Amino acid sequence: MKAVTFQGVGDVRVETVNDPVIKDPADVILRVTTAAICGSDLHLYHGKIPGMLPGMVMGHEYVGIVEEVGPQVRAFRKGDRVVGAFHVACGCCRQCRRGAYNQCERGGVLGYGMAFGNLEGTQAEYARIPFADYTLRKVPEGLTDEQALFAGDILTTAYGAVRNSGLSPGETVAVVGCGPVGIMAVMSALAVGASKVFAVDLVRERTELAARLGAIPVPSKEVNPVSKINEWTDGEGVDVVIEAVGGPATLQLAFELVRGGGRVSAVGVTSEDRFAFPLMQSLVKDLTFRIGVANIHRDIDAVLALVRGGRIDPTVVVTHRISLEEAPEGYRLFDQRQAGKVVIKLN
Amino acid sequence: MKAVTFQGVGDVRVETVNDPVIKDPADVILRVTTAAICGSDLHLYHGKIPGMLPGMVMGHEYVGIVEEVGPQVRAFRKGDRVVGAFHVACGCCRQCRRGAYNQCERGGVLGYGMAFGNLEGTQAEYARIPFADYTLRKVPEGLTDEQALFAGDILTTAYGAVRNSGLSPGETVAVVGCGPVGIMAVMSALAVGASKVFAVDLVRERTELAARLGAIPVPSKEVNPVSKINEWTDGEGVDVVIEAVGGPATLQLAFELVRGGGRVSAVGVTSEDRFAFPLMQSLVKDLTFRIGVANIHRDIDAVLALVRGGRIDPTVVVTHRISLEEAPEGYRLFDQRQAGKVVIKLN
Amino acid sequence: MKAVTFQGVGDVRVETVNDPVIKDPADVILRVTTAAICGSDLHLYHGKIPGMLPGMVMGHEYVGIVEEVGPQVRAFRKGDRVVGAFHVACGCCRQCRRGAYNQCERGGVLGYGMAFGNLEGTQAEYARIPFADYTLRKVPEGLTDEQALFAGDILTTAYGAVRNSGLSPGETVAVVGCGPVGIMAVMSALAVGASKVFAVDLVRERTELAARLGAIPVPSKEVNPVSKINEWTDGEGVDVVIEAVGGPATLQLAFELVRGGGRVSAVGVTSEDRFAFPLMQSLVKDLTFRIGVANIHRDIDAVLALVRGGRIDPTVVVTHRISLEEAPEGYRLFDQRQAGKVVIKLN
Amino acid sequence: MKAVTFQGVGDVRVETVNDPVIKDPADVILRVTTAAICGSDLHLYHGKIPGMLPGMVMGHEYVGIVEEVGPQVRAFRKGDRVVGAFHVACGCCRQCRRGAYNQCERGGVLGYGMAFGNLEGTQAEYARIPFADYTLRKVPEGLTDEQALFAGDILTTAYGAVRNSGLSPGETVAVVGCGPVGIMAVMSALAVGASKVFAVDLVRERTELAARLGAIPVPSKEVNPVSKINEWTDGEGVDVVIEAVGGPATLQLAFELVRGGGRVSAVGVTSEDRFAFPLMQSLVKDLTFRIGVANIHRDIDAVLALVRGGRIDPTVVVTHRISLEEAPEGYRLFDQRQAGKVVIKLN
Repeated sequence: MKAVTFQGVGDVRVETVNDPVIKDPADVILRVTTAAICGSDLHLYHGKIPGMLPGMVMGHEYVGIVEEVGPQVRAFRKGDRVVGAFHVACGCCRQCRRGAYNQCERGGVLGYGMAFGNLEGTQAEYARIPFADYTLRKVPEGLTDEQALFAGDILTTAYGAVRNSGLSPGETVAVVGCGPVGIMAVMSALAVGASKVFAVDLVRERTELAARLGAIPVPSKEVNPVSKINEWTDGEGVDVVIEAVGGPATLQLAFELVRGGGRVSAVGVTSEDRFAFPLMQSLVKDLTFRIGVANIHRDIDAVLALVRGGRIDPTVVVTHRISLEEAPEGYRLFDQRQAGKVVIKLN
Repeated sequence: MKAVTFQGVGDVRVETVNDPVIKDPADVILRVTTAAICGSDLHLYHGKIPGMLPGMVMGHEYVGIVEEVGPQVRAFRKGDRVVGAFHVACGCCRQCRRGAYNQCERGGVLGYGMAFGNLEGTQAEYARIPFADYTLRKVPEGLTDEQALFAGDILTTAYGAVRNSGLSPGETVAVVGCGPVGIMAVMSALAVGASKVFAVDLVRERTELAARLGAIPVPSKEVNPVSKINEWTDGEGVDVVIEAVGGPATLQLAFELVRGGGRVSAVGVTSEDRFAFPLMQSLVKDLTFRIGVANIHRDIDAVLALVRGGRIDPTVVVTHRISLEEAPEGYRLFDQRQAGKVVIKLN
Repeated sequence: MKAVTFQGVGDVRVETVNDPVIKDPADVILRVTTAAICGSDLHLYHGKIPGMLPGMVMGHEYVGIVEEVGPQVRAFRKGDRVVGAFHVACGCCRQCRRGAYNQCERGGVLGYGMAFGNLEGTQAEYARIPFADYTLRKVPEGLTDEQALFAGDILTTAYGAVRNSGLSPGETVAVVGCGPVGIMAVMSALAVGASKVFAVDLVRERTELAARLGAIPVPSKEVNPVSKINEWTDGEGVDVVIEAVGGPATLQLAFELVRGGGRVSAVGVTSEDRFAFPLMQSLVKDLTFRIGVANIHRDIDAVLALVRGGRIDPTVVVTHRISLEEAPEGYRLFDQRQAGKVVIKLN
Repeated sequence: MKAVTFQGVGDVRVETVNDPVIKDPADVILRVTTAAICGSDLHLYHGKIPGMLPGMVMGHEYVGIVEEVGPQVRAFRKGDRVVGAFHVACGCCRQCRRGAYNQCERGGVLGYGMAFGNLEGTQAEYARIPFADYTLRKVPEGLTDEQALFAGDILTTAYGAVRNSGLSPGETVAVVGCGPVGIMAVMSALAVGASKVFAVDLVRERTELAARLGAIPVPSKEVNPVSKINEWTDGEGVDVVIEAVGGPATLQLAFELVRGGGRVSAVGVTSEDRFAFPLMQSLVKDLTFRIGVANIHRDIDAVLALVRGGRIDPTVVVTHRISLEEAPEGYRLFDQRQAGKVVIKLN
């Protein structure tokens, strides 16, 4: 089959590789119909993730048709159209039983190299999905591939960050960073009852997209987000900040925006080892700092239901739709921020 | 001052009564600017509430301007525009400290007679509001009287029923009974993340209003709600039923609509002493039945924030706007279901 | 192998039956080391459960050693000592994914006849356990069979009823009915932070056992539970009632004991189709009524951890330890209330 | 009256000062019967809290008899024996209405100087308590002064840290630092359902006291807490860490002890402005960091109920009982760690 393969820093190519086969009775082989390039794929692209070897297949956002099922797969049969999580989980270890699927003792990330379970990716004609009963969901009737696609990663990542924040209906939210994940956080927060969402980003276009989705734009190159948000919240700050960047400056900003007793939920994938956490200030303000990678299995059903019910439209972030052969160019555009979300249409 | 007074069964009149005065240092005297006739006022109107004596002032939905504050009122000053809860609560008894404000040991219901604290009502030019610091809220900037009004009663009643149901984002909801409270429940459920809301009512117009607000209409004179809803939920039934009528038939229907492991939250004011609860079936289905009058103090801030943020527009239920003098005619129309919500404009 | 078989009303016998075999790749064959007779076995014994055919193996409380594993079992291997849930669940259907394991679309109850999945029971030398990865747990190191045994049924049933009540630390609890499940509820409530637990039963000995475990005894033949409990709660009633009987009189009592804003959690297996629910009173008191069979898979890990940590000692309810051959006599004693919990030691 | 006054760094004296008087209608004047010296008093003692002027009365742990009530006090009358929170809260501002009493817009800390509301302290014969209806609680019948005393500060501080951690029954807890607050955290965690509590401290005696209360001692001078706790938790780490010291080393240790998906709740009063938060590791491990001063008003009722029910005995930390005149010596002993908790008996 053809697949997008990693070759080295800044070098991905479409090559012919071996077709995937069932290795474990819980596997499904999927014929991928739609895939996407994720922000976290750029970490691979830049060579920042150890254990990604030349020739490995990339990608972990996908919708497809079940082609073959392992003998222990109960929930799916050949022909089912499915969307899946970017990480896999067994469903029965101690962590899965607690609902901590992203900490699964047998888990891994698709297309993310040796350090993450050595699983081939989904930017390919076919893909092997382990623990299929737990990792996949049927695409709800009436949804297109593209509507379902992001439930397997960035939409549920953003939704999970909102859920992790403990947002109560009527509360106010600031989303710091309005790239694709941030935009998904804006929609998620509004869908679950935020009264106001402030969309903070240096790039005006991003805050304008957020505004079209119902947020109050805070283009932080032009206005001071702290004073702007204090003004809108009667001097209090917001109940919740979703940090969707991952850097020290935006984290620091998050702690300045949040009211006493509020919560900061960080979901931006960071390359920083440490953050100079404002300890004394947080003790006095009585804060919660929640940080973690997405727990897709926990939230994907709720997210698909919200999309199916028309409460969230995740396709707003898509700017480019390309073929598999065009994937290398898609990576280049996405990496250089000339594209929003890039979707790969396979069939 | 002029006020709507109870005279006997089916007989309310606008009369001149004594102006209210501060009786307790925590009181506020309000100049009422907008009031409304509530479904529960009809229970008085029909003489079903013991302890409502002729001459007593009716009404408990209100917005007004603070005219005078008792010496211990901290949160308000003369001139503040406020909306208030229909029931009052002290804020410091055992029940209030638990957040069970509707069980306040010193509480009562405005305009509801001797059995509910002997407090005069708010369908009047002026009203005395006890425990003002806890019972009142400033009308958020930018909201009209009418937008804020129902936060003091039916909107927060409906919202509270949704909250009591433990609704999680992405879940499905059936609202049984789409009078004003039911319509508010439809809006509340959608605002806090229901994926789909089914609006069930015998009256087609009511389900059509619900549909315009985003619900799936289930006109139960024409379609069987059980089969219709099973069809839409892949045979499962809904996660949550909000029962907004209060009768045995609609309660029974609620238990037929809910999925195994689901919740029925009843808010319809009932005159039934007992209900033939489906015991065995509920044991097997593992259900929660939540029933209770509104707990306005607990939820009013969230509700006002949602209205202020444009997430809910409670004015959609208003069909008539009348003067205080026209109140008796308003009662008649509302009682005969020739009106939806009737608002009394005082200035 | 030898097994306790149902023969007809009041007639169970130890007979030789076929050894169980792996039927599904997710099965485990267990060599049972310890079993027990459950209150719900008496429903079978009395012929009240349709679909229990003569010759079927009874029992659903068990600890054993894994003898054989199906090809898709990941979590266990031959030789593991395990305890299991009385009901089985697939782990991946819609209901299981929500955590509603007792509503599993592929589930059933061991040894409970055709109407509950047609699964043979565990009062036998060997047993087949479906969906083993989800249904079984390793017995934590340091625990005896008997300490672990009830985590698969009555202890977790009682614990679940307490959890379903939403008990907060510091709250007061009345347990109505102090048979084995009620005693387990007393221990569970104290273990998770109840400040006081009132143990109500007509039988003085039962309340005395509860008192030894830390409860306040309320022998309801001698004292009026309503006045007694009101006295101890400063006139309020308790925050939570656990109803562990299942009859109309004890349910009615539960609603009299609970404070305004409180919760009644019923776990007693009932044979009543309907209960005359106090509707108006509950509306005014703002109550929650939670009723459902146990959800073992949801709670068993927490329960085993509490037992392992020495926080709960479930063996206090055991009065008889017998051999498999003596099981018919065990049923007789248990049925005639001449025994508390009867444990069957197999090896 | 006589009172303990601040004079300068390391210098407190018992002097005669003016009796407190009612300043606000919500005030109560208390005749203090029992007080205590708090760890946070040592911050004053060391001159680390700006705004504590010479002559000011110290202290914020207290039990007393109501001597006089302001005209708006509803919940108390002369002669009531009460315990109170170390911080005061109005009960009706935005933050109080959310339950964030420690963020009260009108609040302050008793005996903590100009920067914390300029309120005189309670190490004195009499004390003025603002917002008495919200700040005070009646001592439950049957409790001694000393049993109730710490509900107003360190016991509820520790309990609140456990509550803030989101501890579920059956989970494991490590308490890092077993001074008085840590010991209270050990008892609180066990009271609300921790299966195992690990008590970590450099001082062996402290871990031994914890062991007598039910914890597993981890004297960290002798054993490596990380390997010891990993061993006891099957290599996972604990679900929850309560950090009760406040320094960078113990915070760092907390993040090493917690399992993936777990929570660190910090309550140690710190003098560090920043902490080098392990960002990348926490992102991967999916963690929650909760930090904040105590929210006494939120939790004091639950705590008093637990003490009244015999579930927690807070007097175990008391090592010295002295008279008011001996307070300066009490400060010296406490400061030099020659005393555990020092209680001042006034009458």
